[in-house]
Amino acid sequence: MKHPLTVCLLLLTFYTSAQNKNTESLVRYVNPIIGTQRMGHTFPGATVPFGMVQLSPETDTVSYELNGKYNPDVYKYCAGYQYDDKTITGFSHTHFSGTGHSDLGDFLIMPTVGELKLNPGTADKPCSGYRSAFSHANEVSQANYYKVKLDASNIVAEMTTSTRVGFHQYTFPKSNNAHIILDLMAGIYNYPDKTVWTYVKILNDSTLMGYRQTNGWARTRTLYFAMAFSKPFIQHGFKNYSKGQVYRGFWGKFNQGKNFPEIAGKQIRAYFDFKTNEGEKIKIKFALSPVSMDGALNNMKAEVPGWDFDKVKLDGQQAWEKELHKITISGSAETKKNFYTSMYHTMINPTIYMDTDGQYKGLDQNVHKADGFVNYTTFSLWDTYRALHPLFNIIQTTRNADMVKSMLAHFDQSPEHMLPVWSNSANENWCMSGYHSVAVLADAVMKSNASFDANKALDACVTTARKRDYEGIGDYIDRGFIPDERSGISVSSTLEYAYDDWSIAQLAKKLGRNDIYEEFIKRSQNYKNVYDASIGFMRPKKLDGTFRKEFDQLSTHNAGFIEGNSWNYTLFAPQDPEGLIKLMGGEKRFVRYLDSLFTMHLPDKYFAETEDITRDGIIGNYVHGNEPSHHVAYLYNWTSQPWKTQERIRMILPLMYKPTPDGLGGNDDTGQMSAWYIFSSLGFYPVAPGNDQYSIGSPAVNGAAINLENGKTFTVTVKNQGAKNVYIQKIELNGKPLTGWSISHADIMNGGSITFFMSSRHK
Amino acid sequence: MKHPLTVCLLLLTFYTSAQNKNTESLVRYVNPIIGTQRMGHTFPGATVPFGMVQLSPETDTVSYELNGKYNPDVYKYCAGYQYDDKTITGFSHTHFSGTGHSDLGDFLIMPTVGELKLNPGTADKPCSGYRSAFSHANEVSQANYYKVKLDASNIVAEMTTSTRVGFHQYTFPKSNNAHIILDLMAGIYNYPDKTVWTYVKILNDSTLMGYRQTNGWARTRTLYFAMAFSKPFIQHGFKNYSKGQVYRGFWGKFNQGKNFPEIAGKQIRAYFDFKTNEGEKIKIKFALSPVSMDGALNNMKAEVPGWDFDKVKLDGQQAWEKELHKITISGSAETKKNFYTSMYHTMINPTIYMDTDGQYKGLDQNVHKADGFVNYTTFSLWDTYRALHPLFNIIQTTRNADMVKSMLAHFDQSPEHMLPVWSNSANENWCMSGYHSVAVLADAVMKSNASFDANKALDACVTTARKRDYEGIGDYIDRGFIPDERSGISVSSTLEYAYDDWSIAQLAKKLGRNDIYEEFIKRSQNYKNVYDASIGFMRPKKLDGTFRKEFDQLSTHNAGFIEGNSWNYTLFAPQDPEGLIKLMGGEKRFVRYLDSLFTMHLPDKYFAETEDITRDGIIGNYVHGNEPSHHVAYLYNWTSQPWKTQERIRMILPLMYKPTPDGLGGNDDTGQMSAWYIFSSLGFYPVAPGNDQYSIGSPAVNGAAINLENGKTFTVTVKNQGAKNVYIQKIELNGKPLTGWSISHADIMNGGSITFFMSSRHK
Repeated sequence: MKHPLTVCLLLLTFYTSAQNKNTESLVRYVNPIIGTQRMGHTFPGATVPFGMVQLSPETDTVSYELNGKYNPDVYKYCAGYQYDDKTITGFSHTHFSGTGHSDLGDFLIMPTVGELKLNPGTADKPCSGYRSAFSHANEVSQANYYKVKLDASNIVAEMTTSTRVGFHQYTFPKSNNAHIILDLMAGIYNYPDKTVWTYVKILNDSTLMGYRQTNGWARTRTLYFAMAFSKPFIQHGFKNYSKGQVYRGFWGKFNQGKNFPEIAGKQIRAYFDFKTNEGEKIKIKFALSPVSMDGALNNMKAEVPGWDFDKVKLDGQQAWEKELHKITISGSAETKKNFYTSMYHTMINPTIYMDTDGQYKGLDQNVHKADGFVNYTTFSLWDTYRALHPLFNIIQTTRNADMVKSMLAHFDQSPEHMLPVWSNSANENWCMSGYHSVAVLADAVMKSNASFDANKALDACVTTARKRDYEGIGDYIDRGFIPDERSGISVSSTLEYAYDDWSIAQLAKKLGRNDIYEEFIKRSQNYKNVYDASIGFMRPKKLDGTFRKEFDQLSTHNAGFIEGNSWNYTLFAPQDPEGLIKLMGGEKRFVRYLDSLFTMHLPDKYFAETEDITRDGIIGNYVHGNEPSHHVAYLYNWTSQPWKTQERIRMILPLMYKPTPDGLGGNDDTGQMSAWYIFSSLGFYPVAPGNDQYSIGSPAVNGAAINLENGKTFTVTVKNQGAKNVYIQKIELNGKPLTGWSISHADIMNGGSITFFMSSRHK
Repeated sequence: MKHPLTVCLLLLTFYTSAQNKNTESLVRYVNPIIGTQRMGHTFPGATVPFGMVQLSPETDTVSYELNGKYNPDVYKYCAGYQYDDKTITGFSHTHFSGTGHSDLGDFLIMPTVGELKLNPGTADKPCSGYRSAFSHANEVSQANYYKVKLDASNIVAEMTTSTRVGFHQYTFPKSNNAHIILDLMAGIYNYPDKTVWTYVKILNDSTLMGYRQTNGWARTRTLYFAMAFSKPFIQHGFKNYSKGQVYRGFWGKFNQGKNFPEIAGKQIRAYFDFKTNEGEKIKIKFALSPVSMDGALNNMKAEVPGWDFDKVKLDGQQAWEKELHKITISGSAETKKNFYTSMYHTMINPTIYMDTDGQYKGLDQNVHKADGFVNYTTFSLWDTYRALHPLFNIIQTTRNADMVKSMLAHFDQSPEHMLPVWSNSANENWCMSGYHSVAVLADAVMKSNASFDANKALDACVTTARKRDYEGIGDYIDRGFIPDERSGISVSSTLEYAYDDWSIAQLAKKLGRNDIYEEFIKRSQNYKNVYDASIGFMRPKKLDGTFRKEFDQLSTHNAGFIEGNSWNYTLFAPQDPEGLIKLMGGEKRFVRYLDSLFTMHLPDKYFAETEDITRDGIIGNYVHGNEPSHHVAYLYNWTSQPWKTQERIRMILPLMYKPTPDGLGGNDDTGQMSAWYIFSSLGFYPVAPGNDQYSIGSPAVNGAAINLENGKTFTVTVKNQGAKNVYIQKIELNGKPLTGWSISHADIMNGGSITFFMSSRHK
């Protein structure tokens, strides 16, 4: 028999569409294992682009508490899987990609044979529970396909997905005692009482449905499911581990030990028993819904009516091919692995959050029907406003407009009347600083990707930015900065608000709303109010207008910043590089500052404070593994030494992105890190989303074609490319010399070509 | 100002409808206080007929546990209110009427002035919390109206309802510090973790919505609400009493202490602050929905768009007038109080369980839309199949058919594929024995009140009755009885199954399904299999066919019965009195047995075992306060001494039903006790629902007219009525002498008249 993958890739090779001239299979370059070791927090399992289901193995389900204290290992398991682990506990259906905080891990499924064990057991004693040892040698991880052999049982586990359905295929050995366990207690970032309630109902000998309600990072969340087996189970059972549940059973009216058709409680595990022949496949379709059990069943029927695993896999991989082909590059195999795995990572979050009939749970906890858009959740906006949404404005224009509509629906449903900060499954996490939704909205309008009511969007931005009781905004409005006494992150919030305000001003200007423009363009200069010229750094300012005395510009702890020290955050005025340069004493001092950032030595004690990234995520004191400096390398373009931008970009790219399990220097942050890679390796970057300019870097690809939804193509040609040829001698845009160090959004969207002429020496 | 009640009663006096010749206000005879003392378990608050809302005061919110042990006082508070209590804790929106088990008590509201106290405090120290002393002198309890003065605050609390909306009106003293507390932790039968989750969202300064999910007697239940104030609150606050809730707040992004627009958690209380002038009224509309918060808001808009308290009250009382006028009687004021309060108590449960748009939560935990019927819940069928549903088949034909449709929907949604046993808010309690839904379905079909698919109903009955793994049914099918070893209530279950099976047989016969008729008419004789002729009692039988040795026919504890001893249960073969008499040794021995039952002395030790009733609920060893003997007094009609039925009925009526707070000798059992009263005081009773005959008793009214939905009237005339004239000399039906001791359902539904000629001496 031909291996299904071979068949699939063969087919994909001939996959073509009108807009894509390149018919090479690009899925082959995607390696979801990249980033699963150490701090990347990506997951190796199966998903389709922006799918509701992310079906992936967990290597542990560590609990929030260990011996009564916070368990620091929780952080490692944001995506449920750590490459160095030796055991798999099971396969669950929801995962964040690359976050620095955790939740999800819903509905863990594990196949076993032999004695029934309903506890996962521990990594050091895997035989004590249902978990199994595994080897990376027996593991295949592709876009929308994951396969592993479970050593404990010799079961081969394969999985693929459609948007709302996880499809499992387990190849069993011969066994009279085969089990499939559904663990409704397991979850990522588990703690006592995270699982608020669970309900399961058996419909027949091969179908069940239910829901699980959690109080996790999403405070009030219910996820519904429907589950179908390809083969009837012989018997099934539930175990209720809840403590203190008075009404758990039915007064002995039934024998509920086995084959009882329903259960409800806080801590539930279920099992399903089979007899299997050698090599027999048992398949499972597991559909999700944010709305109802019937919704989940309908999603299953609509998306995966049959039992053809290979077809579902192929359909999903073709969907990936279509998305990956939106940018075709030439370059080394290693570059392609980096590039297409980055492309892959940019298209996992945000995730679709509605049933096939358009119904979804809103932030107001009511069920809504999406009117003319696809509803999305998982907006990690502090990260993604920078490059991910700008990338979508080029290659995912329809989806980005739908994301904006989802954000406006969030605003309409918000009890606080605010745009999303960190949207998670019909909940608001309020994670990180700023109100960066406004930059996403402004960028979409400025780039004419606004199939929504732009004036309504502006109103939502203004309402959000005027929310006086949110994180120092009242003080910020009154004083032009957030006083140190009022917030632990007063400086980074002040800086980020100023940028956000500038983006609101751009939007207002475009819509002719001059009063709003005046208000917010003024606010956008507030970054200057926390600059201490006496030391040349942004610094916490007190209520009395003086700067805080005790201050260490290398520290990120209790220094007025979040995920960055003053050295990095001082450069955060992407809306006004010229003003910043002037503020910091002119070009010479500014260049010296930038040079120092990349070359200085950061003592170990400061690294220990730095969240979310490995030592590899830092170059000198430049922290690429967190986002606040993502624009920094491009700032040389505002000086007379743009060649240093080119040099830095080509230095950062290979250091921070490697096609290995530990290849990411920090959390991928739902695609922001990967979006930086894509832009930078193409040769340009959106320094200040909200304007239509991209700043020139240094392309790392040998060439590229951006195949746009409008049918046009923007071609990147790189002459004299080479590892040392990082400097740009000249640029031609549509055959004419480019003056200055930027191109516009229209230059790209109108189609055309840019040609970089590279050299090993800077001009 | 005229007191609104006066206006109301004045209007009601002139209330009339085509079918009611009697225009007297009957609401005036309803006294909801009856049964609130001791064991009646009725509630004094406001509701409309079959309303979703029962808005009533709680006199305590005792918890399930006291000092770590079960708190026996819980039982007292099945309806939340005990007449002897001195304090009120607040007013909540859902209550069972007359049950022997408890749940509900959702959404407790309490107005206070002065220092804000968010705990209820204790009855012995009312000032320690928000509760208030009150006096019955300051209390008014009417159909759909309740009023009380709260001594702690001098606030006058008034309440009324529509089907889905509770309407509060609080008249405050002058206060700069007035509060309205919404306690989302309070509930009836509270225990740790009963409240699974709570969510509240403030829409504006006078509107909020939310939900509460409970794990109570209804194991998995969510009730949604929308709440509107007639006056904006100045400020509001929440307090979260939850323990172990990791994600409760928002990381300090907001000051959530006051005026924050949302909260979620397990244990929540909310308060709303006002300034009030002397005599200022603050009104609250509080709408419920089993489906969603929006559903609750829509219910509020649809049912109570304005703020006219008096109109809502009047509308509801007119609805009661219409229902009460279905039977107009002549008799003493005391008789009318008993009669119309009984009528009132028969029309509280079952309750409407769907939104105004027809949506409801089903037993399968999905949202459904009722197609052509009104969906009901709260079916206490072990009680109500006996007389309540038969009464509905006369005076509530449309509703009873809708109740059957609700039961069939329950069947369709049941994971166990069974008709309801005890249906509670989209949950099945499985409380008590038998599968008496089948008798309700059969009775409706036999009485031609079947605007549903009767064959589908029969199939549901058969599927339910063949459910081998439910409470001994398998054994019952195989052996003709439930062995003592297999069930603690083997005898009463065997007896009740046999009756239920007979009703299925009647239904099958009517539908021409002869195979089913044969199967179930045979099963209906199974009652004989647990009769021990050697002692003359029904008795637990063992697997080996011998009777259990240790046996006390007076005991209800561990004797093979539920809520009845063998003395009472031995008479339980209502489907076959002739057969029973023969089994028990012929008429002479049977009459002696009946006589003994009513006259013997029940030693105190046995009374102590008897659940749910006071000493007053027992006559000799005849237990009227529980249901199994409700047909027993009528069994003399199958002997040559029917005058003893007449005598017993007229003895039972005044002993068991008094127009006083302690007037009910046992739990009203969602109207079954009251339905017995109504039938018996009219002179006839449905001994075996499922046939169309009513057995003659002795009328206690002076006369009556049953005003039927079909426009016809059945008149009861009583000649020579008197307290001692309890014996019937003759009966004329439509002017012709009645032979035998029964009339048929058609006799009633065709309209006409029955005339009883009474005497002080029996024939």
